[in-house]
Amino acid sequence: MSKIIGKGLPDMPWQEKPEGYDMPVWRYSQNPIIQRNAIPSSNSIFNSAVIPYKQGYAGVFRCDSKAVSMDIYAGFSDDGVHWKINENPIQFDGEDPEILNREYRYDPRVCFIEDRYYITWCNGYHGPTIGVAYTFDFEKFYQLENAFLPCNRNGVLFPRKIDGKFAMLSRPSDNGHTPFGDIYYSQSPDLEYWGHHRHVMSPYKGDESAWQSTKIGPGPIPIETDEGWLLIYHGVITTCNGFVYRMGCAILDIDQPWKVKYRSKYYIMAPYEQYECVGDVPNVVFPCAALTDADTGRIAIYYGCADTVTGLAFTTAEDLIQFTKQNNMN
Amino acid sequence: MSKIIGKGLPDMPWQEKPEGYDMPVWRYSQNPIIQRNAIPSSNSIFNSAVIPYKQGYAGVFRCDSKAVSMDIYAGFSDDGVHWKINENPIQFDGEDPEILNREYRYDPRVCFIEDRYYITWCNGYHGPTIGVAYTFDFEKFYQLENAFLPCNRNGVLFPRKIDGKFAMLSRPSDNGHTPFGDIYYSQSPDLEYWGHHRHVMSPYKGDESAWQSTKIGPGPIPIETDEGWLLIYHGVITTCNGFVYRMGCAILDIDQPWKVKYRSKYYIMAPYEQYECVGDVPNVVFPCAALTDADTGRIAIYYGCADTVTGLAFTTAEDLIQFTKQNNMN
Amino acid sequence: MSKIIGKGLPDMPWQEKPEGYDMPVWRYSQNPIIQRNAIPSSNSIFNSAVIPYKQGYAGVFRCDSKAVSMDIYAGFSDDGVHWKINENPIQFDGEDPEILNREYRYDPRVCFIEDRYYITWCNGYHGPTIGVAYTFDFEKFYQLENAFLPCNRNGVLFPRKIDGKFAMLSRPSDNGHTPFGDIYYSQSPDLEYWGHHRHVMSPYKGDESAWQSTKIGPGPIPIETDEGWLLIYHGVITTCNGFVYRMGCAILDIDQPWKVKYRSKYYIMAPYEQYECVGDVPNVVFPCAALTDADTGRIAIYYGCADTVTGLAFTTAEDLIQFTKQNNMN
Amino acid sequence: MSKIIGKGLPDMPWQEKPEGYDMPVWRYSQNPIIQRNAIPSSNSIFNSAVIPYKQGYAGVFRCDSKAVSMDIYAGFSDDGVHWKINENPIQFDGEDPEILNREYRYDPRVCFIEDRYYITWCNGYHGPTIGVAYTFDFEKFYQLENAFLPCNRNGVLFPRKIDGKFAMLSRPSDNGHTPFGDIYYSQSPDLEYWGHHRHVMSPYKGDESAWQSTKIGPGPIPIETDEGWLLIYHGVITTCNGFVYRMGCAILDIDQPWKVKYRSKYYIMAPYEQYECVGDVPNVVFPCAALTDADTGRIAIYYGCADTVTGLAFTTAEDLIQFTKQNNMN
Amino acid sequence: MSKIIGKGLPDMPWQEKPEGYDMPVWRYSQNPIIQRNAIPSSNSIFNSAVIPYKQGYAGVFRCDSKAVSMDIYAGFSDDGVHWKINENPIQFDGEDPEILNREYRYDPRVCFIEDRYYITWCNGYHGPTIGVAYTFDFEKFYQLENAFLPCNRNGVLFPRKIDGKFAMLSRPSDNGHTPFGDIYYSQSPDLEYWGHHRHVMSPYKGDESAWQSTKIGPGPIPIETDEGWLLIYHGVITTCNGFVYRMGCAILDIDQPWKVKYRSKYYIMAPYEQYECVGDVPNVVFPCAALTDADTGRIAIYYGCADTVTGLAFTTAEDLIQFTKQNNMN
Amino acid sequence: MSKIIGKGLPDMPWQEKPEGYDMPVWRYSQNPIIQRNAIPSSNSIFNSAVIPYKQGYAGVFRCDSKAVSMDIYAGFSDDGVHWKINENPIQFDGEDPEILNREYRYDPRVCFIEDRYYITWCNGYHGPTIGVAYTFDFEKFYQLENAFLPCNRNGVLFPRKIDGKFAMLSRPSDNGHTPFGDIYYSQSPDLEYWGHHRHVMSPYKGDESAWQSTKIGPGPIPIETDEGWLLIYHGVITTCNGFVYRMGCAILDIDQPWKVKYRSKYYIMAPYEQYECVGDVPNVVFPCAALTDADTGRIAIYYGCADTVTGLAFTTAEDLIQFTKQNNMN
Repeated sequence: MSKIIGKGLPDMPWQEKPEGYDMPVWRYSQNPIIQRNAIPSSNSIFNSAVIPYKQGYAGVFRCDSKAVSMDIYAGFSDDGVHWKINENPIQFDGEDPEILNREYRYDPRVCFIEDRYYITWCNGYHGPTIGVAYTFDFEKFYQLENAFLPCNRNGVLFPRKIDGKFAMLSRPSDNGHTPFGDIYYSQSPDLEYWGHHRHVMSPYKGDESAWQSTKIGPGPIPIETDEGWLLIYHGVITTCNGFVYRMGCAILDIDQPWKVKYRSKYYIMAPYEQYECVGDVPNVVFPCAALTDADTGRIAIYYGCADTVTGLAFTTAEDLIQFTKQNNMN
Repeated sequence: MSKIIGKGLPDMPWQEKPEGYDMPVWRYSQNPIIQRNAIPSSNSIFNSAVIPYKQGYAGVFRCDSKAVSMDIYAGFSDDGVHWKINENPIQFDGEDPEILNREYRYDPRVCFIEDRYYITWCNGYHGPTIGVAYTFDFEKFYQLENAFLPCNRNGVLFPRKIDGKFAMLSRPSDNGHTPFGDIYYSQSPDLEYWGHHRHVMSPYKGDESAWQSTKIGPGPIPIETDEGWLLIYHGVITTCNGFVYRMGCAILDIDQPWKVKYRSKYYIMAPYEQYECVGDVPNVVFPCAALTDADTGRIAIYYGCADTVTGLAFTTAEDLIQFTKQNNMN
Repeated sequence: MSKIIGKGLPDMPWQEKPEGYDMPVWRYSQNPIIQRNAIPSSNSIFNSAVIPYKQGYAGVFRCDSKAVSMDIYAGFSDDGVHWKINENPIQFDGEDPEILNREYRYDPRVCFIEDRYYITWCNGYHGPTIGVAYTFDFEKFYQLENAFLPCNRNGVLFPRKIDGKFAMLSRPSDNGHTPFGDIYYSQSPDLEYWGHHRHVMSPYKGDESAWQSTKIGPGPIPIETDEGWLLIYHGVITTCNGFVYRMGCAILDIDQPWKVKYRSKYYIMAPYEQYECVGDVPNVVFPCAALTDADTGRIAIYYGCADTVTGLAFTTAEDLIQFTKQNNMN
Repeated sequence: MSKIIGKGLPDMPWQEKPEGYDMPVWRYSQNPIIQRNAIPSSNSIFNSAVIPYKQGYAGVFRCDSKAVSMDIYAGFSDDGVHWKINENPIQFDGEDPEILNREYRYDPRVCFIEDRYYITWCNGYHGPTIGVAYTFDFEKFYQLENAFLPCNRNGVLFPRKIDGKFAMLSRPSDNGHTPFGDIYYSQSPDLEYWGHHRHVMSPYKGDESAWQSTKIGPGPIPIETDEGWLLIYHGVITTCNGFVYRMGCAILDIDQPWKVKYRSKYYIMAPYEQYECVGDVPNVVFPCAALTDADTGRIAIYYGCADTVTGLAFTTAEDLIQFTKQNNMN
Repeated sequence: MSKIIGKGLPDMPWQEKPEGYDMPVWRYSQNPIIQRNAIPSSNSIFNSAVIPYKQGYAGVFRCDSKAVSMDIYAGFSDDGVHWKINENPIQFDGEDPEILNREYRYDPRVCFIEDRYYITWCNGYHGPTIGVAYTFDFEKFYQLENAFLPCNRNGVLFPRKIDGKFAMLSRPSDNGHTPFGDIYYSQSPDLEYWGHHRHVMSPYKGDESAWQSTKIGPGPIPIETDEGWLLIYHGVITTCNGFVYRMGCAILDIDQPWKVKYRSKYYIMAPYEQYECVGDVPNVVFPCAALTDADTGRIAIYYGCADTVTGLAFTTAEDLIQFTKQNNMN
Repeated sequence: MSKIIGKGLPDMPWQEKPEGYDMPVWRYSQNPIIQRNAIPSSNSIFNSAVIPYKQGYAGVFRCDSKAVSMDIYAGFSDDGVHWKINENPIQFDGEDPEILNREYRYDPRVCFIEDRYYITWCNGYHGPTIGVAYTFDFEKFYQLENAFLPCNRNGVLFPRKIDGKFAMLSRPSDNGHTPFGDIYYSQSPDLEYWGHHRHVMSPYKGDESAWQSTKIGPGPIPIETDEGWLLIYHGVITTCNGFVYRMGCAILDIDQPWKVKYRSKYYIMAPYEQYECVGDVPNVVFPCAALTDADTGRIAIYYGCADTVTGLAFTTAEDLIQFTKQNNMN
């Protein structure tokens, strides 16, 4: 059986797969777990990241205000399901005021490496690029250099150095509603200078896997397993009425993560429920974080729904890996 | 406390703000008040205007037929909530057959000035422009010259002359689904010849108030208050799945209404409810009329929902003015 | 009273028109009759065709997989309402491997002519074109040449030869989300070579019948009546948030079917219900098949809903023909 | 023979039609008459207007600077061929600083009415609209209100009041490279307030006169003749490599100039010469002014060439009117 | 040495390759051979076809009028260089008035098969498609059915039946300035019904042969040689300033012409000369016809220049075939 | 007087400014210095870079082949005017075959730093990005990692380390004909890892300097002077017939080159000459290299003309700096 390499998390949110359900990922029965107006100023809360912290959980949340201004907020939870989100956005410290200057911030990820929590997000700097910061306590945040030139989105760190280097997936873009997008792998000795960029994977052009034919982007922090890095990502198709965002899965080589070992031609989850199909942007499921328990292989995925609310879904490493290998189209 | 300058309307539709509700505008609990097929020929009834008339209310309604042909219809109500809409569209008399020729008509407003009711609407004349007519009884309608050259939409009269001139807000456009749009102020000695055009306000380009970043347009007849003209308007953002129409508020100078005194960076209402999010055009709230009671400051807003049905919402002059001043970004 | 020319089908699915309902087509009360995941691999089942077969019914179904790959599947039913769809797509035999090569297949129609069942569908061959095949038993399918060069969609056969030739309606297109489209009539001595193409009808440019202003396409196999060929078709309008697909009706000359005798300016059905307004492509009703009973004039229409599920609706030849003649705008 | 109604101008620039030349308009043999850098700051001088003034001629010239900033400059000439253009742009006086504020100015026309010279031009005011000013001496210029809301271009006054009103042709547009455009007629009692807008003519959609299928716009001040107003205008076609601007002719009713009596299906001049085909915008001839001699019927047309230099061409009222009537497609 | 299979034509236009010239096709030294105004009504004469006829040559010419209306005209020449073009367009006889109705006609080809001359051209019939006609004498023309449904352009017949069928190349398109386009091969037993469509070749996506990356289309009637059918075609690239049309060469299998044996990655001719780079559409060379002499292998290519004038160029079968084989990228 | 900081180059190409010429940059009288077919395989040679080398000059040239494949070629010259370009493109050695894989290469720059010549160019790697290589002798070239993720163009190194880091200007783009583009400054300790990205300057939105309103990009290696880094760059405007590329000048802070000290609102050179206005892409001047003589301040600019040939132009540091300061709009 496939094994997650990492720590145990026995009390993480969990529900068993419903009887007779035949998809590899199933929804939490009380979804959405975070409503659009969970803090007074918010129009919508979605595309957000969580991580184990102390006895419970911490997170960084995308809250669009009622001005539809996009920013990221810290929050805390005892059980990973019920969240208390700060009413003010994160303030960053750092060396250079030019980098600290806020244009807009959205779609955060959180990654623990070595001794601290790193935050990456889509950061406005003459166009969207990848903001990087770290925190020890989710109260004080220290912002580093942007990782890349604009335009880029969906910067996702690996949870440990690979070949002695920090490693990040990202998805170069344009500065609008980008109708294209490949995933790349980049390396850094110091989280300041990035290079040795490698192409990982492209949208699939053609009918065989059309749900991911317009663009793809990495989702949660890759999960280390004995089969390789388990990557949950989003894929987009262009219909005559706009984009539909779905969720897919791939397995990357453990030492050379730009090499795709397996990639499922089927989506693992798609907008079926009312709260995923109706909202500010209809027909979107967008995963940004996952909790894992190495002892049981359980995975809890946090995902944005219709760009409006936040949902929770469950799977196991064994489920995802078997599904991906059986439906591999790599 | 802010005061509406005008007449009392003690029996106007009204519900108190729900307990614990923290937005400045709240919905009528029996929304939508007009269903899509309220007359036999209609596909949808929305973006419509009402006004006190005799002991009750009269209105001009946009009814798209089951051919999806757009026209405007008169209707009457005792209580402002239950409406009897004529089954045939308004017929206009007038001097010049070229002007009377109907291409299409939609998005009406109604304004009482001095001794009669003026109707303005989006009128097809080799492209959309602002049609103008008057009636004394909502039975006979007399059509004047179009106010402007094409292409223009959302022509909204002020309820009295300003500096001795009739005054109108409008939103120049293209002849498609216009991806831009500012509000302008124009003046006329006679409702025939228009000039002295002044720029009022633009969409807000940037994250600070992104809900109104694509285009804006005036909604109901401006409401005269001791703080200035209270303008409820619509603002539009472009998502990857199309436009979202929301409702905002500004306060214009009483004598020089092209000068914006306050403008809220937050929307005052947005598509949250099923009947606003799902319909022929998802995610639209579009205000076209307001009833006011000077004695209490109560305001009842009539708005189109998803380009399909008509909704009713409530606020007060005090609520809106305080909200706008506190969140001013002018 | 208008009469269908054809066979009786006394046990076909049927419900009487609801009391007080004033549209010419009414929905089945248990809609949708086929859910999105009615077979294990499916993301959605819609835009599908059925036909009487032996003691019951057979059909060809568009099932998009959970890779959102588009293919067509055979299925069977005793009552026309409850369907058993094969879990594997149709395999075609034929002469030329180049033609048999599958790129993608969607939006099938089924037509019985003389001694066998013909299938037409949108077939990928360096762009979409019209695939043609026949079967005697819905188990073995023999694929003929594509009827036309790319790009074309919605190829619909007539149920008998006309003037000694096979006859087909189609809708030339581009290879994207085609923003235009007329219906044409083409003839063939042998189903291999096609010619004598005739223009049938165009979208209606203008407000008078705006629901069909972007493009139109034929739906079910035309129904022979004593008034001419009854053609149910789809019409599309472009809103600021994408396409809306509705259903309309026309009557074509019995001997020269490229001549339109009557065409209704009103739609006969439009997306009103939740399962038609919400789904992978919101706001779509798309008819692909009809069952008819010549003895009673009853018609049962099968149609795709929001590109996600399959619905059933009822009408009669008398209803449709009277509606079309009374609202004729030809 | 057709007659110009107006003054004599015996010394106006003139060359006889070349032997064997069969088009109705012929070029000046020393074209271009104004080079791109005729003043030190200019990148290009084109789309400019001239008029008889004192013993010679005055003009208003579009000079794009070497910053490609667009402004208008006064100039003077003894013979209408050799011009001295001021090195600084026109400064306007006027009542309202908001109107006087310069965004950009281009494509001027000059028209003498009653006692003074009126200038109209494309004036930036939150988008292009029609600026209006007058001068008595081409030294002091007094700017009036903009005639219309944005977006509009090519505002061309008539040289006398019609039915007691000032009259202007214009071409509503978008604020980019407008791919559409009709000519309209508007009226004003005072040059301040405008109304009674009438549609004059549209681009010609179809092969019969494809050179004017994208957009059209009025050129010089209309020339009064015994056949009606002689209107020289530009017409545009969209090729796969952009727009081609050509010159056409129409005759408008003398009392109701929005009624087109004749309109030639053929262009009267097109980019043939190197200086018309090569330049900052290839393939443009753009007429903005005409001198006329009522005694002989001679007409001298000033036109921009490839948005870079200024050319001069000749014709007669008789030539143009006969050509237009013989090739009428109205 | 490669040999043309066909007749001798000893007096065809010819000039030897200039000393030191290293391209496979060289221009006639007196180009252009037909000026834009060679007939009184013409704006431009280009994209035209010629063929040996009696003792000299006949041709069908695209003459755009000074209304920029597109039609085709017959013409005659003793030497193939100096042409007398009729002043009126071709009139067609035929069976069906609907087919005979002229919308527009352009880009003709002429092909002798068995006993008569066939004309094909881009024919307007609710969009561009392939018109077909024949003549025995270039005076009376008999029009057959359109070969295909719209939209299609560049229909080019083969000069003899292949496998017992008439054969045609064509390039399906949209009805604008089509930014895509593959060449297809279609077959017919009778020139009335067409089928057995085969894909021949696509634009080349990528840097290796970028001049033909946007679209390609067949040019002159294919030339039969002992190596296969020699196909001269046009290829298009999209630059930031529009399309550039160049000329390329391929060799098709003699019995299965949809199989490309060789295709040169280099163009054989491109717009270098002033009359090819400057005109109504800059940067176009567009071949439509070729004369050949089987005895010497000489080939004379007639091509449109900048959509304005007609040029002549020379090569030999040996030159083209060697060039194509040596630079093959098939 | 402004001084260039660097070496003398007494024999560099030079011509004095023509008498009476009033622009800051003047053309070489024998332009173009390199014809489109200067090597047998070339369609065009332009956008190329030169540098002093041994007793003469070396260069890297963009030669588009007659397949319009884009690659870069080494070449040599004794006098900087007459060039001998290799007939085969540069071959690169390097560590990683994935990086060495050639998709396309264009628009090179050459920069000497410390002990070797660095080449940067637009390198195809799943989209355009910045390729980097070095050579000691223009015979063997060693390719390093790409500097950035796609999409990027116009990577231009500084000729020395700044603040201990290698420094590069670049212009992030999309992967088409990019209608936007700012210049950025990036730093690297080792030419492998890049970071500390800084925004330098944007297109100028507005009429004041419209020639650079669409996009801008760095040209030659910045020239060190006592006033700062002298940056010659290209600016683009969008006309209705496509882009026009012109040449501008800015002065960057010597220690913090992302700070713009001066920037001229006027262009310093624009397409005026036939070989700049007519060619594969009309209306382009595109500077890629400059030779300088510190003793005299002379500058010779090499620039591409109409994407077809290569031109040479002259100026001095004093001329450019004074012009830029006097016309500063920073």
